[in-house]
Amino acid sequence: MSNAYLLDIIIISLATALLSFVAPKIKLPAVVGAILAGLIIGPSFLGLLKETVFISEIAQIGVIFLMFTAGIETDIAAMKKVGKAGFAIASLGVLAPIILGGWVAYLFNDSVQDAAMLQNVFVGVVLTATSVSITVQTLRELGKLNTDVGNAILVAAVIDDVLGLICITVVSSLVNKTVSVPVVLLKIVAFFALAAVTGKLAQMLFNKMGKWLDRRTINGPFLMVHVLCFCFGMAYVAETYFGVADIIGAFLAGLVLRTTPLANIIDRYIQPVSVVFLNPIFFANIGLTINLHYISPTLLYLSLALVAVAVVSKLIGCGLGAKLCGFSFKKSVQVGCGMICRGEVGLIAANKGMELGLMPSNFMPAVVVVVCATAIITPILLKIVMPDTATDMSVHDVAKWTSNGFRKLPGVLPRAIAVRAFHVHSKL
Amino acid sequence: MSNAYLLDIIIISLATALLSFVAPKIKLPAVVGAILAGLIIGPSFLGLLKETVFISEIAQIGVIFLMFTAGIETDIAAMKKVGKAGFAIASLGVLAPIILGGWVAYLFNDSVQDAAMLQNVFVGVVLTATSVSITVQTLRELGKLNTDVGNAILVAAVIDDVLGLICITVVSSLVNKTVSVPVVLLKIVAFFALAAVTGKLAQMLFNKMGKWLDRRTINGPFLMVHVLCFCFGMAYVAETYFGVADIIGAFLAGLVLRTTPLANIIDRYIQPVSVVFLNPIFFANIGLTINLHYISPTLLYLSLALVAVAVVSKLIGCGLGAKLCGFSFKKSVQVGCGMICRGEVGLIAANKGMELGLMPSNFMPAVVVVVCATAIITPILLKIVMPDTATDMSVHDVAKWTSNGFRKLPGVLPRAIAVRAFHVHSKL
Repeated sequence: MSNAYLLDIIIISLATALLSFVAPKIKLPAVVGAILAGLIIGPSFLGLLKETVFISEIAQIGVIFLMFTAGIETDIAAMKKVGKAGFAIASLGVLAPIILGGWVAYLFNDSVQDAAMLQNVFVGVVLTATSVSITVQTLRELGKLNTDVGNAILVAAVIDDVLGLICITVVSSLVNKTVSVPVVLLKIVAFFALAAVTGKLAQMLFNKMGKWLDRRTINGPFLMVHVLCFCFGMAYVAETYFGVADIIGAFLAGLVLRTTPLANIIDRYIQPVSVVFLNPIFFANIGLTINLHYISPTLLYLSLALVAVAVVSKLIGCGLGAKLCGFSFKKSVQVGCGMICRGEVGLIAANKGMELGLMPSNFMPAVVVVVCATAIITPILLKIVMPDTATDMSVHDVAKWTSNGFRKLPGVLPRAIAVRAFHVHSKL
Repeated sequence: MSNAYLLDIIIISLATALLSFVAPKIKLPAVVGAILAGLIIGPSFLGLLKETVFISEIAQIGVIFLMFTAGIETDIAAMKKVGKAGFAIASLGVLAPIILGGWVAYLFNDSVQDAAMLQNVFVGVVLTATSVSITVQTLRELGKLNTDVGNAILVAAVIDDVLGLICITVVSSLVNKTVSVPVVLLKIVAFFALAAVTGKLAQMLFNKMGKWLDRRTINGPFLMVHVLCFCFGMAYVAETYFGVADIIGAFLAGLVLRTTPLANIIDRYIQPVSVVFLNPIFFANIGLTINLHYISPTLLYLSLALVAVAVVSKLIGCGLGAKLCGFSFKKSVQVGCGMICRGEVGLIAANKGMELGLMPSNFMPAVVVVVCATAIITPILLKIVMPDTATDMSVHDVAKWTSNGFRKLPGVLPRAIAVRAFHVHSKL
C-alpha cells in the first residue's frame, strides 16, 4: 500500500490553512480561500495533486458532517415559520434556471438531433440543483446561520433538492421508458415518511442513551458511534434507496438530534475533526476537480454564459420568491445570493444526462466550471450583501459553532467560571 | 461515486462498539472485542464487507494517531532510563524468532531449491517485527502505559523496528545485489539524525505558535493543522525516504510535541475522532484482512506452528532481555507478552520476500494468520499477567488518556471546580 494519501492530506491541509487564514485579511470569506487553495494546488496551477478516490470520499464525509451540524444548529420551529417562503423560493428558483439555462443551451447547442430541444431543457434542469453547503459555511462565518434568511435558505435548499430530482426524472422519463415518474414521486414521499418515523425512534433511543450516559452505564464515545451511524445511515439510505441527496439525509439526522440533549456532546466529538481535517478537504476538493488547462475559447464563452445564467437565475428566481413572501428587498437579495451555489447534485445529473444522450457532451466541462465558479462567487456575494458582525479568522475557526454547545455549561458550573472556561476553551 | 464506504463505516462502527462493549464483561480486553468484530463481519464469517483501499487508509491513519498519541504520553526521561534494557529486549527479541522461526520453516518448507536455507532464515526474519500498537492500546486500557514496563516495551519496539529492517536488508542483499546493506544502515542513521533536527525545529515552531495562540493571533484549529501535518509528515518521510515504519515516525513526532505546551490541545482535537472513528476501524481491519475459509488442514498446522513460535520466541527472547537488565521475573514476563504482537511490518517484509523468491509461497497466508492471532493473543496475555487497576468499559473509552491533558487544568480553575469539570468532561 502506498502512503501517498498522507502527502495529499499534508498538502491540502497546509494550503487551505494558509489561504483561509489570508483570505479574510483581504476581505474575502475564508471558505473562498480554501476553495482557491484547491484550485492552486490542483491540476489547474501547481499540479501538486489531483482528485483521488480517497480525497473524494473524505470530502464527502466532510460535507455530510457540514450538513449534519447545520441540522443540529437549525431550530425546527423557526424553519416551520419560513416553510411557505421556502417553498416559493425553491419553486421560482427551479423555474428560472430551467428557462434561462435552456435558452443559453439553445444558443450554444449545435446538435441537429430531434432531441436538441429536450437537451436544452435538460441543461436548464442541471442548473436547478442548489448546493447549500458552501452557503452554510459562509453564514456560519458571518454569524448568520440562525436568522430568518438562514432558515429560509435551508428550507428552500431541501425543497429545491426534491423539486430538482422530480424535474430530472420527468425529463429523463421522456427518453428512457424505464424511468417512471410516479415511482420517483412515491420514493420521495416514502423517504420523508421513513425519515419522520426513523427520526421519532432515533429521538427515543438517544434520549434513553442520554440517560444511560448520565448514569455512566455507557460512555460518550460509545454513544457517539451510534450518533455517527445514525447520521451516515440517513445519508446512505437517502441516496442509495430513495434517490434523495445524501446531504439531505444528514441534515434531517441533525434536525432530529437537535431536540435531544446530546447536541453539545456531538459538538465536542464531531466539530474538532470537521474543522481541522474534513471541511478543508471538502472545500479544497471543489477546486481540485477542475483543470483550467482544458478550457478552450469556445468552452470559455459557454462556461461564462452558463455561470452568468446560474448566478442570475437563482438571484432573480429565489429573490422574487422571497420578496413575494414578505421578505424585505435586502433580505430577498441575501436569500437569492445564498441559493446560487451549485454542487455535486448538478454534476451527478449531468452525468446521468450524458448516459441518456440528454446532455450535449461539450457542456459537461462547462458544468464543472459552474460548480467551481458558483462555489467561489456565492460566499463573496453573501459577504457583500450581509454585513459581517463576527470577527472570524479562518475557515478552521470553531468558536462560533461551539457556542451552541457551551450555552449549556452555566447550569453545571457557576456562571463566572463558565465564562472563564469558555475563554479557555475558545483559545484551545 | 458510490457511497458504499458509508455503509462499511456504519457496519464496522456498530460491530466494534458492540463487541468492545461486551468483551470486558467477559474479562476480555476491549481491543480484542474490536478485532473479533472485524473477523466476524469480514469474509471469514458474515462476509458483510471486505478490506477496501478506503478502509485500509483510514485504518492506517488510525494507527498513526495511536502511535502519535503514545509518543505524546511518553516521558522521554523515563524512556532514557530504560534505554539499555530496551536494547537488550529488542536484540534478544529479534534473535529468538530468527532461530525458532527458521527452525519451523525448515520443518515445513518442501522447497528443493538451493535457496531453501535462506528462505527458512527469511521466515524467521519476518517473525521478528513487533507491532506495538495493539500493546499500546491494551496498556492504556489497563492504565499501565506510563510504567517502567510500558516504557521498556516502547523503547524496545522502536529498536526492534530498526533491527528488523537491518535483518531484512541483510538477507535480501544476499539474493538481490541491488540491495545494499551500507546504504540502508546509512539511511537509518540519517533518519534519526533528521528526526532530531526536525524535532528541535518543530519544538521551536510550536512553542512560538503556542504563544501566538495565547495572544489569539491564531486559533486552535489553525495550530492543529500544523500539528497534524508534522505528524503525517514524519510518518510519510520515515517510510517513503528512509524505509523506517511510518508509525515510528509518528511516535517520534509525538515525543517531540510532548515537550511543548500543546499536549492537551492535541488531546482535544485528535482524541475524539481517534476513539470514536479511527481506532475502531484500525482494530477491525486486522480481523478483516483474514479469510478463514482459505485455511486448509496443512495450512492450519503450519499456521499453528508459526503462531506458537511467534508467541514463544518473543516471550523467551524479550523476557530474557528484560530479566538480564534487572527487571523482576513478573515484569520480564509482562515485557515479553507486550512484544508478542506482529503487524503490517511483517506482512510488508513477507511480500518483499515473495518478490525476491525468499518466501515460500505457502507461508504467506500463515503469516497473515500470525498477524491476526498475535493481535488477539497479546492483549489477552497482557490482561492476565497485569492486574487491571482501571475500570474501563470499552475500546472507545477516553477518560484515561485525556487525564493527561486535564492534569493541567488546575492552574486555570480552582481545584474543586476542576475536579468537577473533569467529571462532567468524562461523562461526555
